[in-house]
Amino acid sequence: MKRICLLLTFALGMTASYPQSGYRLWLDYKPLNEPLSDQYRTHIRTLVFPVNSETDRVAKQELLLALDGLLGYQPELTDRIEGSGALVIGTPASLPLLDDVREAQGALPKHDEAYAIRSIAGDNTPMTVIIGNTDRGVLYGVYAFISLLQRSQDISMLALAEAPKVQLRVLNHWDNLDRTVERGYAGFSLWDWHRLPGYRDPRYTDYARANASIGINGTVLNNVNANALMLTPAYLEKAATLADIFRPYGIKVYLSARFSAPVDLGGLEDADPLNPAVQQWWSEKVAEIYRYIPDFGGFLVKANSEGQPGPQNYGRNHADGANLLAEALKPHGGVVMWRAFVYEDTEPEDRAKQAYNEFKPLDGKFHDNVIVQVKNGPIDFQPREPFHPLFGAMPHSQLMMEFQLTQEYLGFATNLVYLGTLFSETLRADTYCYGANSTVARVIDGSMNKQPMTAIAGVANTGTATNWTGHPFAQSNWYAYGRLAWNPDADAGTIAEDWLRRTFGNDGSLIDALLPMMMRSRETAVNYMTPLGLHHLMGWDHHYGPGPWITDKMRADWTSVYYHKASKDGIGFDRTVSGSDALSQYVPEVRAQFEDPQTCPDEYLLWFHHLPWDFNMKSGSTLWAALCHHYYHGAEEVADMQAVWAAQQDKVDHIIFQEVTDLLAIQREEARRWRDACVLYFQQFSDMPIPDGLESPEHPLEYYEQQQFHFVPGI
Amino acid sequence: MKRICLLLTFALGMTASYPQSGYRLWLDYKPLNEPLSDQYRTHIRTLVFPVNSETDRVAKQELLLALDGLLGYQPELTDRIEGSGALVIGTPASLPLLDDVREAQGALPKHDEAYAIRSIAGDNTPMTVIIGNTDRGVLYGVYAFISLLQRSQDISMLALAEAPKVQLRVLNHWDNLDRTVERGYAGFSLWDWHRLPGYRDPRYTDYARANASIGINGTVLNNVNANALMLTPAYLEKAATLADIFRPYGIKVYLSARFSAPVDLGGLEDADPLNPAVQQWWSEKVAEIYRYIPDFGGFLVKANSEGQPGPQNYGRNHADGANLLAEALKPHGGVVMWRAFVYEDTEPEDRAKQAYNEFKPLDGKFHDNVIVQVKNGPIDFQPREPFHPLFGAMPHSQLMMEFQLTQEYLGFATNLVYLGTLFSETLRADTYCYGANSTVARVIDGSMNKQPMTAIAGVANTGTATNWTGHPFAQSNWYAYGRLAWNPDADAGTIAEDWLRRTFGNDGSLIDALLPMMMRSRETAVNYMTPLGLHHLMGWDHHYGPGPWITDKMRADWTSVYYHKASKDGIGFDRTVSGSDALSQYVPEVRAQFEDPQTCPDEYLLWFHHLPWDFNMKSGSTLWAALCHHYYHGAEEVADMQAVWAAQQDKVDHIIFQEVTDLLAIQREEARRWRDACVLYFQQFSDMPIPDGLESPEHPLEYYEQQQFHFVPGI
Repeated sequence: MKRICLLLTFALGMTASYPQSGYRLWLDYKPLNEPLSDQYRTHIRTLVFPVNSETDRVAKQELLLALDGLLGYQPELTDRIEGSGALVIGTPASLPLLDDVREAQGALPKHDEAYAIRSIAGDNTPMTVIIGNTDRGVLYGVYAFISLLQRSQDISMLALAEAPKVQLRVLNHWDNLDRTVERGYAGFSLWDWHRLPGYRDPRYTDYARANASIGINGTVLNNVNANALMLTPAYLEKAATLADIFRPYGIKVYLSARFSAPVDLGGLEDADPLNPAVQQWWSEKVAEIYRYIPDFGGFLVKANSEGQPGPQNYGRNHADGANLLAEALKPHGGVVMWRAFVYEDTEPEDRAKQAYNEFKPLDGKFHDNVIVQVKNGPIDFQPREPFHPLFGAMPHSQLMMEFQLTQEYLGFATNLVYLGTLFSETLRADTYCYGANSTVARVIDGSMNKQPMTAIAGVANTGTATNWTGHPFAQSNWYAYGRLAWNPDADAGTIAEDWLRRTFGNDGSLIDALLPMMMRSRETAVNYMTPLGLHHLMGWDHHYGPGPWITDKMRADWTSVYYHKASKDGIGFDRTVSGSDALSQYVPEVRAQFEDPQTCPDEYLLWFHHLPWDFNMKSGSTLWAALCHHYYHGAEEVADMQAVWAAQQDKVDHIIFQEVTDLLAIQREEARRWRDACVLYFQQFSDMPIPDGLESPEHPLEYYEQQQFHFVPGI
Repeated sequence: MKRICLLLTFALGMTASYPQSGYRLWLDYKPLNEPLSDQYRTHIRTLVFPVNSETDRVAKQELLLALDGLLGYQPELTDRIEGSGALVIGTPASLPLLDDVREAQGALPKHDEAYAIRSIAGDNTPMTVIIGNTDRGVLYGVYAFISLLQRSQDISMLALAEAPKVQLRVLNHWDNLDRTVERGYAGFSLWDWHRLPGYRDPRYTDYARANASIGINGTVLNNVNANALMLTPAYLEKAATLADIFRPYGIKVYLSARFSAPVDLGGLEDADPLNPAVQQWWSEKVAEIYRYIPDFGGFLVKANSEGQPGPQNYGRNHADGANLLAEALKPHGGVVMWRAFVYEDTEPEDRAKQAYNEFKPLDGKFHDNVIVQVKNGPIDFQPREPFHPLFGAMPHSQLMMEFQLTQEYLGFATNLVYLGTLFSETLRADTYCYGANSTVARVIDGSMNKQPMTAIAGVANTGTATNWTGHPFAQSNWYAYGRLAWNPDADAGTIAEDWLRRTFGNDGSLIDALLPMMMRSRETAVNYMTPLGLHHLMGWDHHYGPGPWITDKMRADWTSVYYHKASKDGIGFDRTVSGSDALSQYVPEVRAQFEDPQTCPDEYLLWFHHLPWDFNMKSGSTLWAALCHHYYHGAEEVADMQAVWAAQQDKVDHIIFQEVTDLLAIQREEARRWRDACVLYFQQFSDMPIPDGLESPEHPLEYYEQQQFHFVPGI
């Protein structure tokens, strides 16, 4: 047993650069200085953990690493359960079936990935059992146990049992083969394609550890705007190496498939899904992929959207396209995740209606290994959107959720915006499709329509940044996504607190200060970006900063004016029956919430209504005044965040403290820019003064319109 | 005093992922387990280190970090020298001028950056003094002292005094503003331009620490193929933030200037250096830069080369162009580094002659704040080149060296190639320009022609890779460059050993195994890539892998066939009087070494001569057989490297062990590919069999010719 002790001293108020903060994410096992450490030592005296697989091996390794870091010792390793304080870990098959173990087994849900953690009094031999039906369940149980220790929880009377509510919990990497990342703000792609398959970057393993620790069990390696090269032997061999590294952590590899691959690679004349040669090509290609990756997860496909090829190129529909690939994958157990984020080639009356219009008629037409991937809202990952009307609207199809972790429309990696609340808001929204309490979560977890396959996707926010996500707090969005993917009903506040404790330790005053800041942060961003249901106001193309003035692009629905429709007569997109009638895509109970501007919640007011500037808000003020107050309040809230953070100086690592201090200062500037640009822009139409007591914008509107940003990342 | 103790256990043969290896470079202060630790404790009992500047602050911080990590304790901090075991650090101005301090001061060279380290017996108060004329000298002294500890050197009788032999020791980053890096193989640019100036990535500080620790005192932030945007206020503000971070570490910021900036940014009609409006524009632009960066170092310029604009566009010469910028910089103390790596627009008779032909006639025409930056060899950073004929040939001009750390032609970040030997080979080459012992080093350090300004540049191999350089051993090239920049006469072997000790510890058997491997590694690469003076055989454009068949490109001198000239009658580039006569650019003593193929060293044979396949080598074999043996031997040597490395498994961090194991396996494949591709290609012309005893290539030539590499990094 080799032991290396690194002593790091932050001496005399001088800062030391070690460790490089953030790389270890929420798995930085710093020593606990807690009263419970003694309890932990008595309950983790010996360890019985039979290793029968690579998954067992990595789970045991993680546990020992955690114990050593958190508690500073290693338990005695043994293969016999005797004496008190045994930690017993395994499956019913791997463990001796003592009565105690059977008791734990009895608590275990019937699910491949389930685990139970039980404190068992025993006959003079109190012990703790972590049991799973499979080694993957054991792995999740081990991570859950580590989390208990990190959060200083009492482990003397544990009775936990958990199974994931969603089967396929995947990250979508919009990573290109040249290592750029579309909408990536944390550096570049983690995948060093050039040096794969030979060079196995140690970071791949740490990526797998982080994902496994929050229950993510799949990853789509390449961008949905896919390059067909990904499906060639050279790249499949590379992907196979990643799959080999991820496999012990319970993570399957998926690939984005370019629909025209039979033409691009196979030399066929078309990629028509009804062409037998095309079907044959995919069948052979899929068989080839499974030779490289025996447990390959399947394909993610973006087709007939933003210029990507698809079945409509050949007069077929999305079901034809998805089923083509599904048939090829079926014999191997693979699935197709088919995105519903589509465009017609022609300009729509209301882009918000498109996915529903195209997919609703196809309900029931998809094969049973196809699942339709629907973004959380009907436009495109805006700071706030109502839930997507497809949720609940396709009872005979399998639907999955697509969230975006990378902050494309939420300030990139410079804005502190905790997305747990955004995700949860959508998941808890009630579609009423099957009566009250038909929440989006219940659609996604399959409990509404009994769909056999369930899935959820998050567009990853990871990159080559040392701390993975660019902004230290953006780690919490990766974390929250994993936790909500496992349990869409989980509480965003609990998740945020868990993340804070695992990241910054268990100082109560720090949690009390930072938790409310995180929980408020998304509403803050909505306020200074797109309050009152406004949306799609961002800068052209790169989506950085405000651009309410964006007009005259290739398509009207790529401009801002299309969405806010500000004019002398008012602002907002009328989606009621008097307008685009997008509201009709929701069931009556939902429509009733939104269709009357007098009762529509402020959060969605201008999403559904076009209203005059002097519209009388529920608060009594005019719409114009309310709009201004939201923008100004949002910017002020960032100043509040700065003050909250500044007070934590002595409680967090000095490097992270400085990083977040820097980033909040940037965020404050960005919030002011959003505020001033939008207020000045809309004021042209309202012709009303900025309400008393609010400071004047620093610059005239032209200044903001003329700001140029070069080499904005993520494109 | 806060103390954080991280206990890392590699338990039971299971590997732990912490720490993420390599980030800390040679500054990873792991505990010393050496007999000398006791000596260190008695000699570093108290610390007297007055802090009067930011540079003092960071030097003291680094020392305390190192002592804590290496020795596990902090000395008592005091401002009085009393008792034995005092470590006294400062300048003559900051320290009490006791006799002991005066003694140390007496040893101090007269140079701003010099330091002396002296053990002083004293009257009952033996102590150690680290003294510099400036705080920068102190900083270098502190790093030198830390290095002594890391390498377990006796510190009881120290009498060191050091001053750098070259004044400006800079890195050239070929980093683009979109964060791609031309010829970058370690990920992407360290500079997160988008989040500058607000977000100060902690990595910037660690970059500065690493450079300061090896004496680098300048950095050119952007690519020589420059974007004029770099000179706009938005980017100058970003560069200024980097300059602020680097300044305490004695590092100045320089920028690559696009010669056409007066047109691109200033709206002028031309950038003619004799146009007063152009002169005025540069004068104002430079004044503006100095408002952002008061100690701005100056410009690096690539002009009239590979499509870059330059003075020749207006019928002026390189001196006109360089002097234009020099005049603008002069009042502020800035310098111009003007690259001699130039092309004529027309195809040259011999590209090797171009720089000399263009620059030699300009000798004496450059202003005194211009220094001409010359690559080590006359072609372009090939695995082996003779020294550049300009060295020593411009006695009335200031010349500096440009080395390439990034392995553009040496296998990128997959090949273990220690470049200290390559750099040293050039620096020790004798130009004979001022008689015997007119080494390139003595040209560079100014001792030959008494040039007042001296400089050296290294094209950086750093990037976003966690370990900075992609290949763990590529760190040694950054390290060696810094050490040779400080002292061009330093021994490459000593430097390699120092790096090994600081990186892997002081295990004697490990040093004995790895040092010869490193020292041999560059010759190994030459053998399997370009033996016997061959050059420029690499793949098209991306420069990855072999491409001796490259022909028919825009310019003949961008092809391989132009350089090897293989045909039925032989192989090699005749640069004697019967050929291009490039040899005439060297003085007679040098010519004499090379002009007779019977006596020309094998290393340069085909660089200077075109010889028949059956040419009789000094070894007695034919040229063809010798060529084959070099290629095969090179590939075999990589197998030897694998064996040497495999034997170190228990002696190095398990993550680095696995990384290097992976990379050596890739290198072995690449070496075989080079070998087989080149031998098969040349065999077409030699019509001779591969010598007995050598295995047959695995594939036919067509296989190698048809290999395609997509998205090769670094372009």
